[in-house]
Amino acid sequence: MPVNVPVTSKPRIVIVGGGFGGLELAKKLKNFNVQIVLIDKNNFHTFQPLLYQVATAALEPDSIAFPLREIFNKQDNIIFRMAEVLRIKPAANCIETSIGEITYDYLVLAMGSKTNFFGLKDLEKNAMRMKSVSQAMELRNLILESFEKALLTNDLQERERLMTFVVVGGGPTGVETAGALGELKKIVLPHDYPELDFNNMRIHIIDMEERLLRTMSEEASRSAQRFLEKFQTNVWLKTKVESYDGRTLQLSNSKQLFTDNLIWTAGVTGALIEGLMPAASNNRLKVDVYNKVEGYQNIFAIGDIAAVITKDTPHGHPMLAPVAIQQARVLARNLKATIEGKPLKPFRYKDFGVMATVGRNNAVVDSRFVKFQGFFGWVVWLFVHLMALVGFRNKIVAFVNWAWNYFRYDRGLRLIIRPFGR
Amino acid sequence: MPVNVPVTSKPRIVIVGGGFGGLELAKKLKNFNVQIVLIDKNNFHTFQPLLYQVATAALEPDSIAFPLREIFNKQDNIIFRMAEVLRIKPAANCIETSIGEITYDYLVLAMGSKTNFFGLKDLEKNAMRMKSVSQAMELRNLILESFEKALLTNDLQERERLMTFVVVGGGPTGVETAGALGELKKIVLPHDYPELDFNNMRIHIIDMEERLLRTMSEEASRSAQRFLEKFQTNVWLKTKVESYDGRTLQLSNSKQLFTDNLIWTAGVTGALIEGLMPAASNNRLKVDVYNKVEGYQNIFAIGDIAAVITKDTPHGHPMLAPVAIQQARVLARNLKATIEGKPLKPFRYKDFGVMATVGRNNAVVDSRFVKFQGFFGWVVWLFVHLMALVGFRNKIVAFVNWAWNYFRYDRGLRLIIRPFGR
Repeated sequence: MPVNVPVTSKPRIVIVGGGFGGLELAKKLKNFNVQIVLIDKNNFHTFQPLLYQVATAALEPDSIAFPLREIFNKQDNIIFRMAEVLRIKPAANCIETSIGEITYDYLVLAMGSKTNFFGLKDLEKNAMRMKSVSQAMELRNLILESFEKALLTNDLQERERLMTFVVVGGGPTGVETAGALGELKKIVLPHDYPELDFNNMRIHIIDMEERLLRTMSEEASRSAQRFLEKFQTNVWLKTKVESYDGRTLQLSNSKQLFTDNLIWTAGVTGALIEGLMPAASNNRLKVDVYNKVEGYQNIFAIGDIAAVITKDTPHGHPMLAPVAIQQARVLARNLKATIEGKPLKPFRYKDFGVMATVGRNNAVVDSRFVKFQGFFGWVVWLFVHLMALVGFRNKIVAFVNWAWNYFRYDRGLRLIIRPFGR
Repeated sequence: MPVNVPVTSKPRIVIVGGGFGGLELAKKLKNFNVQIVLIDKNNFHTFQPLLYQVATAALEPDSIAFPLREIFNKQDNIIFRMAEVLRIKPAANCIETSIGEITYDYLVLAMGSKTNFFGLKDLEKNAMRMKSVSQAMELRNLILESFEKALLTNDLQERERLMTFVVVGGGPTGVETAGALGELKKIVLPHDYPELDFNNMRIHIIDMEERLLRTMSEEASRSAQRFLEKFQTNVWLKTKVESYDGRTLQLSNSKQLFTDNLIWTAGVTGALIEGLMPAASNNRLKVDVYNKVEGYQNIFAIGDIAAVITKDTPHGHPMLAPVAIQQARVLARNLKATIEGKPLKPFRYKDFGVMATVGRNNAVVDSRFVKFQGFFGWVVWLFVHLMALVGFRNKIVAFVNWAWNYFRYDRGLRLIIRPFGR
């Protein structure tokens, strides 16, 4: 059944995914004489780098999610449909979605990435993930409910398990999450739960590499580890996770950790769907320097899902928002050039740097020109993220919440909102 | 199994419910030499009068919900447990909850009210309700998803059904909800859905009485109806609802309305639980002027769940926040007097008035001294509700959101957040 989309004589560009890449591409195509159809399973864009703040009760979802229809209110050449894409049918120039079929002249895949458990089935079943607003809210509920439960037991082992938090993965997301948990332990939760002894709250972060933040400088890694250890976070390096039954985590060094709260940030993989053959490493689509998917003439991929394979980048670029945004900008130009029969411009990544925050007042920044850590890093981190948040209203709300947290040493958002009924 | 609650030599007062009544009572008992155990199924207090604003995407949940643990951060004589109460065992001075049994010296029931469908089973199954934060969020999702679906169909009848909203119940909640839907129709949604013709969006409000807002003055009723009709809302009076299968609503005047969106605000009933015998009208507990439940010496009830039966109030007082708050204040005093063997003070309701807002700029106010409607009423309504919102942070956030809506004629919160997965 075809989806009800107006038919025009203009070329139709279907963009799947309203993340950083898809959003930027749709915006850049604003004045082009094309019909854009944007598909996303949510009706909002998610500012993924701050999901961990929703999970740790520092921000409400509306500060990091922005309705796509509002973003494109004033753009005439775009149509949005909320749908999940199920399958691509390249031979028919058509995608099959949860609401029916949509044909395309050009297809751009920008579905991003999803959590990768590397085949560890029991982790997939028992670990919390943090790739969507819903998941971040579930994680918040889990964290808060663990303390409610800890109050109810006199079994010291059970209470310890409930008050132990293990973050698997020492990348930026893992480090930021562990830091935010450290803050909750130090500043927020002891006021809420005076009956509990917070010396018994334990935070662990586990990574298989030799250092945290392995994509950043050694300086950044050292600082991040120092900041985390200030919160009495246990940093386990060169350690793999073997199994987790929901209570007992088996590590590769034959140690065990007992926890009801395991947060998995150790890996992502391209969010592939059926219908296309080629895939490069990490389940990402292999694309050329014009972001064209190998083997197809009118299918493109940008962002986390795409791997631009060159001599310098045998596995593609890192899965970061700036990569997706830069690819979107070049692709917008190239789509126009393609339609007009003009020469294309190859994509080249400009790396402006990476940063991560570790609790209140501390961040590590590896910029293109200079590296720094600590309070100034935190100010820079705050400024960059505030400026990047889509939309003016979100900035005000995010700023009020942050300022509140900062000056009150407190968080107003410790709500356990149940999904159904009640 | 007993719940893990510290045992002291002080009298234990168990309060069930952290709504307006339970919250006020717990606060007023602050300096008393008792142990208070507060039980609520949520870990937050809900500011129920503004639930309709969450449902219509004007406010986020965190503006009208406030963590109970934070409210009682600095109060030493209170313990909070998140639990659902299942049964009262008066003979054993004990309540059975989802987390185990808790004994009491004095028990105060403040569980409020729940939606009443008056035995209409298919309405209970198919109508949306709005008595909790979760339900308000579900309603928001339903409203927004209806427009997403309306885009997908060429069947005009189906599209009309999706764009038709029926509010059953002409009390303050119904009137305010219909007004907020009118605003969405007039100001917000046409920008988001330029493909839809909003002349086809229909809003109906249905009440069995001769006028809307029957507990208010005739002046207020007339103004409310006029304000609603300005939004092209269809007001059906002296009309009962007979059945609703999820698509077709059968009215008592033998007319039918076709809608996928039915919001039920037509009745509430005390949220009773097992274990107590007596109940007065509307399934409320019959209590004396000291809010003591008939037949028991140490069980009290306040707020919506309690009916203080006197000559002047044969069915109890109206189910309003001020009644609950005033009863809580008198009961706090009387509990102290009881423990100290002093004489009790009877409850007498001071009625300061009722108000309801109808869309942007309009409200109807019946105060004790003067009645007024329109813009000034709206300003008063705004001020009173802003002042009443628990906690300082919530006021800032609510104010930013309201101001944003007001000056931008827009709402930033049109997020469909799915409960699970994704």
